Amino acid sequence: MRVVILAHEQFPDRAKTAVGVLRYGDQEVVAVLDRKTAGTTVGDQLPGVGADDVPVVDGVDDAPEFDALLIGIAPIGGGFEASWRPDVRAAIERGADVVSGLHYFLGDDEEFAALAEEYGVQLRDVRTPPENLTVAEGIVRDLDVEVVLTVGTDCSTGKMTTTLELVEAAREAGMNAGFVPTGQTGIVLAGGGIPIDRTVSDFTNGAVERSICERAEEYDYLFVEGQGSIVHPAYSAVTCGILHGAQPEHLVLCHEAGREAIHGYESFSIPDPAAVAELYTDLADAVAPTELLGGALNTADLDEGPAERAIDAYGESLGVPAVDPVREGADAILAELIDE
Amino acid sequence: MRVVILAHEQFPDRAKTAVGVLRYGDQEVVAVLDRKTAGTTVGDQLPGVGADDVPVVDGVDDAPEFDALLIGIAPIGGGFEASWRPDVRAAIERGADVVSGLHYFLGDDEEFAALAEEYGVQLRDVRTPPENLTVAEGIVRDLDVEVVLTVGTDCSTGKMTTTLELVEAAREAGMNAGFVPTGQTGIVLAGGGIPIDRTVSDFTNGAVERSICERAEEYDYLFVEGQGSIVHPAYSAVTCGILHGAQPEHLVLCHEAGREAIHGYESFSIPDPAAVAELYTDLADAVAPTELLGGALNTADLDEGPAERAIDAYGESLGVPAVDPVREGADAILAELIDE
Repeated sequence: MRVVILAHEQFPDRAKTAVGVLRYGDQEVVAVLDRKTAGTTVGDQLPGVGADDVPVVDGVDDAPEFDALLIGIAPIGGGFEASWRPDVRAAIERGADVVSGLHYFLGDDEEFAALAEEYGVQLRDVRTPPENLTVAEGIVRDLDVEVVLTVGTDCSTGKMTTTLELVEAAREAGMNAGFVPTGQTGIVLAGGGIPIDRTVSDFTNGAVERSICERAEEYDYLFVEGQGSIVHPAYSAVTCGILHGAQPEHLVLCHEAGREAIHGYESFSIPDPAAVAELYTDLADAVAPTELLGGALNTADLDEGPAERAIDAYGESLGVPAVDPVREGADAILAELIDE
Repeated sequence: MRVVILAHEQFPDRAKTAVGVLRYGDQEVVAVLDRKTAGTTVGDQLPGVGADDVPVVDGVDDAPEFDALLIGIAPIGGGFEASWRPDVRAAIERGADVVSGLHYFLGDDEEFAALAEEYGVQLRDVRTPPENLTVAEGIVRDLDVEVVLTVGTDCSTGKMTTTLELVEAAREAGMNAGFVPTGQTGIVLAGGGIPIDRTVSDFTNGAVERSICERAEEYDYLFVEGQGSIVHPAYSAVTCGILHGAQPEHLVLCHEAGREAIHGYESFSIPDPAAVAELYTDLADAVAPTELLGGALNTADLDEGPAERAIDAYGESLGVPAVDPVREGADAILAELIDE
């Protein structure tokens, strides 16, 4: 499937979905839309994802042939920005499906719905959870599967990336490992899953539990993508639901080097990561005992020397192996899991 | 408004909504439906709520005239039991509205919807949140209001009751105090509010924040009804969203004397209440610093002597004043708030 990814004014640093699909997706990306960096290539903006020659263009009209337009950015609140409307319209008129993980459902937009019908294309809102969710039963520990959950000091600290790198490392080590997505990008990548942040709060823990139960027979190890942070003023309900719904034996704490305040909520400082790790394990322990397996540090903003020193310091403060999974993969954390 | 309360086979011990309305509601209760204790009175089952002579009857057909049937029980999961169907049908046929806080929406039930239209009555599902909820902004601490939140070691430990007793005690002390409901019973009692356990998880913290913002100008003190427990395998997402959305300066921990395991999840033991209190304050502190103001112990199953000893021991273990608000009101906790 040939896709164009919309990431206006936010590619690559704040375009998590776009970067995830470029790095881990099976789709063939033929263009990225970003009016700020139009005229460059993906290689200029984000080298090392095997898409160096893919053009960054101003809008759908400048893109080569494609089958689907993917909304590759997820603004706080999940709204749809009016400035994206011409691109969605143009994509539909060129016969392409539109895939979106926004809270705002394109299928409920009258103009897009009518246009999609006229041109015979699909509007796929992957953020719609199943309708028959229930409360958690608390049964994950009864399953014959070992669960690793990535957690974070904030949003956008690399939880999805770390999870995918852990799965890759586990499979390379010959383990029967599965990925449990919980967010829209992960669901697009995995080809299915429940968007946990869109579930009714009473059923949030239960939706995570179901995601694990559905995959437990097929795999020996499940790596669950975390969301938000337990210290986030807005998203902690989602985070807590995943922590207790997944009942993980192991946690991996994701942090961005140098980030001191919650992104978009700058008056809320992030506690010391070691204290955040302790809060996660204390909170998990009250339902199902867990342990910190490793730390993942996002050092994208640092040069190699400072990055290495930051990773070392991070691991030392947490008392577990630490990596930047984008620089070096997740082998060092996985080794810890195998050793046990 | 004359109401009949449906509480089949669960009145009074597991009929939280029924008991709340009887104890704190403005409505005139004319009968309780409970086929297990039919033939008795409310006074036989639940003395001291000013409804001693209200009959407990087998079904709607045995009830005196009334304006609304209220579903007064909330089973785990919020489902509608088939055995309640004849009573709802009969109530509609007698021209009464039906008020429900269940997850199962009566308005979506084809039979009830058709019947309600035929008889010109309303089906009021109070568990429907507003459609325009958003993520939290983290602004409660910027408001000119002091927030007290009740939290629990489990569900059904007396959080709503404690909150209402605190409001009553505060008003008697001349304070300008408001009640912030978060669950269906509280909303029925308050005449409005957002059912937090029914909100989309990404907006759960935000829904609580909005509930507080809407009442902050009118009051100096807001007492927020908590839900679930941070150590509950199924409902902790809701609890965490309330804790961080409300940004309370003060917490009151509610516990049931002698309860050692999560109700309905008996393989999950409840940690020592003092440890649960510490987990609540640690988790709250990471977003907005808080302190434990008092403890509320539900001693309904104990005689007076053992109850007093249990309350004393509970307060001592928490290091704050403790009460059973049903036995003695919440004055002792309120005094602590005034002292500060």
